[in-house]
Amino acid sequence: MIKVAILGCGNVGTQLGKAFFKSKKVDLVQVYCRSSTASFFLNNKIEVVTNLNKLKEADVYIIAILDDAITDFAKKLPQKKALVVHTSGAVAMNVLPFKRRGVFYPLQTISKNKKLSFKKVPFCIEANSKKDLKILKKLAKTISKKVYKIDSEQRKNLHVAAVFVNNFVNHLYAIAEAICIEKDIPFSILKPLILETANKIRKISPVNAQTGPAIRNDQKTIEEHLKLLQPKQQEIYKLLTNSIKNTHQNNS
Amino acid sequence: MIKVAILGCGNVGTQLGKAFFKSKKVDLVQVYCRSSTASFFLNNKIEVVTNLNKLKEADVYIIAILDDAITDFAKKLPQKKALVVHTSGAVAMNVLPFKRRGVFYPLQTISKNKKLSFKKVPFCIEANSKKDLKILKKLAKTISKKVYKIDSEQRKNLHVAAVFVNNFVNHLYAIAEAICIEKDIPFSILKPLILETANKIRKISPVNAQTGPAIRNDQKTIEEHLKLLQPKQQEIYKLLTNSIKNTHQNNS
Repeated sequence: MIKVAILGCGNVGTQLGKAFFKSKKVDLVQVYCRSSTASFFLNNKIEVVTNLNKLKEADVYIIAILDDAITDFAKKLPQKKALVVHTSGAVAMNVLPFKRRGVFYPLQTISKNKKLSFKKVPFCIEANSKKDLKILKKLAKTISKKVYKIDSEQRKNLHVAAVFVNNFVNHLYAIAEAICIEKDIPFSILKPLILETANKIRKISPVNAQTGPAIRNDQKTIEEHLKLLQPKQQEIYKLLTNSIKNTHQNNS
Repeated sequence: MIKVAILGCGNVGTQLGKAFFKSKKVDLVQVYCRSSTASFFLNNKIEVVTNLNKLKEADVYIIAILDDAITDFAKKLPQKKALVVHTSGAVAMNVLPFKRRGVFYPLQTISKNKKLSFKKVPFCIEANSKKDLKILKKLAKTISKKVYKIDSEQRKNLHVAAVFVNNFVNHLYAIAEAICIEKDIPFSILKPLILETANKIRKISPVNAQTGPAIRNDQKTIEEHLKLLQPKQQEIYKLLTNSIKNTHQNNS
């Protein structure tokens, strides 16, 4: 049994807590929450503390709090000799002032209340020693089938890439929805296409899956489209169209 | 039984042909292909002609050819009194020089060889009379559960919106893949996030599903991200970040 303490009871902390609580290979010894009002955790099956000095011994302490707060929070932790990890995609491992430090980053959008299985969520792990990396790998494997060793430099880049495929993609969905609303078209017409576009890249590299007027260099359609758009939508349409053209000019 | 002739044996023509062939409510009388080399269709179970004058009588003639060729092709059709439709998202109904004209547009990326069920594919239909609209609705319902009445003006806009959620989204996937390749990160790490992002908008409007540094106005992370990107990627990052900020400033 790996003894784990979770520090933080936001989205990631809560979901990790629930998952570890179910696992037979993990002993979730405690959860730390900043405020006692948040001390309701798994129907009180897990001890929740609001004072860092009351933390019990554990094999791994997982800091699951906002990115900006990690550095200061870590300084206050009394566990100077234990393995301490954070769960952030954007923060370097080395902000943690411990000899035994690491990262335990689940790459998925995680909300507190939505039911979530970590089974297919990729865990990006990093540690300061091979021994601790092994511990993190073992721990991640208790709840997920996908564990990757990713260093801080890679993780930073992965985090940007995630912004493109998650935040920016979602914004393109929002633009399409705005176009639909404007013209009294049900947005649901586009949902099968959205799902198919995402599903397609499970098997085909997105570079090879590219279709549409930009890659066909279909200038007539591009100009027709631009006429229909608002100025700010036009800017995005032009930039992405040119980017597709450039990408595929260089490839061919 | 609705008697149907399909004119064109590209991606859409072939897939529609296969689907109608299976349907018990449709009699697929003929398929027209431009060249005889393409006359292999459903193992010769359907008659294929390469001469428009050999077309038999049908209730609906479906033109499934490239957008640019539709206008000229339609002029050559001898069936001046039948219901003739095209399958394009971008071409107006009125380019068809027939009194009984219409549109029969399946909104999905369609390739010739991939197995495809039209059941969940939205069909956007339009006709010049209520009677013909009814026929097209009945016909679409034989292969799909999702049939929408969409006029030419709406369809043009839907087509642009589709470029955003399909072509542009796929390009963002491609950029993320390029970042991963550059840093020796397996792109597959991002696939669960890509699928989750698409799945999320089945229930939540994309405007409400927006997350990330742009909507949080997290300038520190935005600047860190920009440092990691190539100049052309930076341009896209900046424009989409500002667009998210603007969208949500106006909403709040």
